[in-house]
Amino acid sequence: MNGAGAAVDKAGPPPVSSPHTMNYCSQCGAPVALRVPPGDHLPRHVCDACGTIHYQNPRLVVGCVPEHAGRILLCRRAIEPRLGYWTVPAGFMENGETLQQAAARESHEEALVSVEVGSLLAVVHVLHARQVHVFFRAAMPTAEYGPGAESLEVALVAPADIPWDELAFPSTEFALRRYLEDRAAGGEPHHFTTIDRRLTRAGASAS
Amino acid sequence: MNGAGAAVDKAGPPPVSSPHTMNYCSQCGAPVALRVPPGDHLPRHVCDACGTIHYQNPRLVVGCVPEHAGRILLCRRAIEPRLGYWTVPAGFMENGETLQQAAARESHEEALVSVEVGSLLAVVHVLHARQVHVFFRAAMPTAEYGPGAESLEVALVAPADIPWDELAFPSTEFALRRYLEDRAAGGEPHHFTTIDRRLTRAGASAS
Repeated sequence: MNGAGAAVDKAGPPPVSSPHTMNYCSQCGAPVALRVPPGDHLPRHVCDACGTIHYQNPRLVVGCVPEHAGRILLCRRAIEPRLGYWTVPAGFMENGETLQQAAARESHEEALVSVEVGSLLAVVHVLHARQVHVFFRAAMPTAEYGPGAESLEVALVAPADIPWDELAFPSTEFALRRYLEDRAAGGEPHHFTTIDRRLTRAGASAS
Repeated sequence: MNGAGAAVDKAGPPPVSSPHTMNYCSQCGAPVALRVPPGDHLPRHVCDACGTIHYQNPRLVVGCVPEHAGRILLCRRAIEPRLGYWTVPAGFMENGETLQQAAARESHEEALVSVEVGSLLAVVHVLHARQVHVFFRAAMPTAEYGPGAESLEVALVAPADIPWDELAFPSTEFALRRYLEDRAAGGEPHHFTTIDRRLTRAGASAS
């Protein structure tokens, strides 16, 4: 899972970024102002020097629940946020790929696993993080897997062994619980939910 | 439908923007370079002055197919791209809202209509535009509607009268055709498809 405005991992000046702030116009380099443009209803970062309005929109995080012989593939995160906690393969969607391709790519990157992406499982609006998380069901034709660069370890776990108290994100838990419930019921519906921590903590930038 | 990096509508310098380019760091104002960061696999806009990596990800465009008494609500666009062509209410998702709220908001903005957003209808990966379009089914409890600021006119049309040759976007046509097929079949499944014009035209920035 790549960050959205993360700092370069190298010697050099410390990062000053937050993905939700904008100080300068990315087109012309002039300072931007945060105000409501004519005809609009929300404040935007506006450049009066070159006329560009910089819209900010939610980002898509895409993942899947890979299953092999009744067990679920989980990854323990090697990166922040939530380093050391468990999740399913997921990450920011890239330009030029489909949702299903993104889920397969993240599975390969984080767990060195090839998956066959299946039906839509869950859509989670993570309002405080300005993200939409999309999860699919996925099959693992073989039990070959291992930790990618962003994982400390990867494991195929029986449902009874899922570490519910050590999951990285609420959206991970939502996807896993719906997955298991649906599997027990014999159906493959999809589920929507919304997580909003804007009222309970300030400055949240990750789910 | 607000643009993603559109020009301010005012007297002043002409717009220079493209939503897919970045010349300066939005954090510190220094020039950015386009290169693959350490540990990454895709080129990113990187600022060597402050250390920020500026990721660019697909944007969500959300809409719905509003129906009232068997007729479909369509809007004729008052703005580019595709000014004068017909579409269903849809636009860029804003931070802090759900997909369903975005579909309802766009319906209100573009067609002055209150809708009850229903089931997921279609997900269209528009690869050349770096967008994911999501459409829902929607009910109009009353036949009250009218042109919002971004519409020339709004109409409730019978399926036989849909102007297929004057639709604004391929994703609009996909959503409408699936909607009518599903309605005839008596089901409400969801559909995925991918549209990719990267190979047939250069510089595409809209669907």
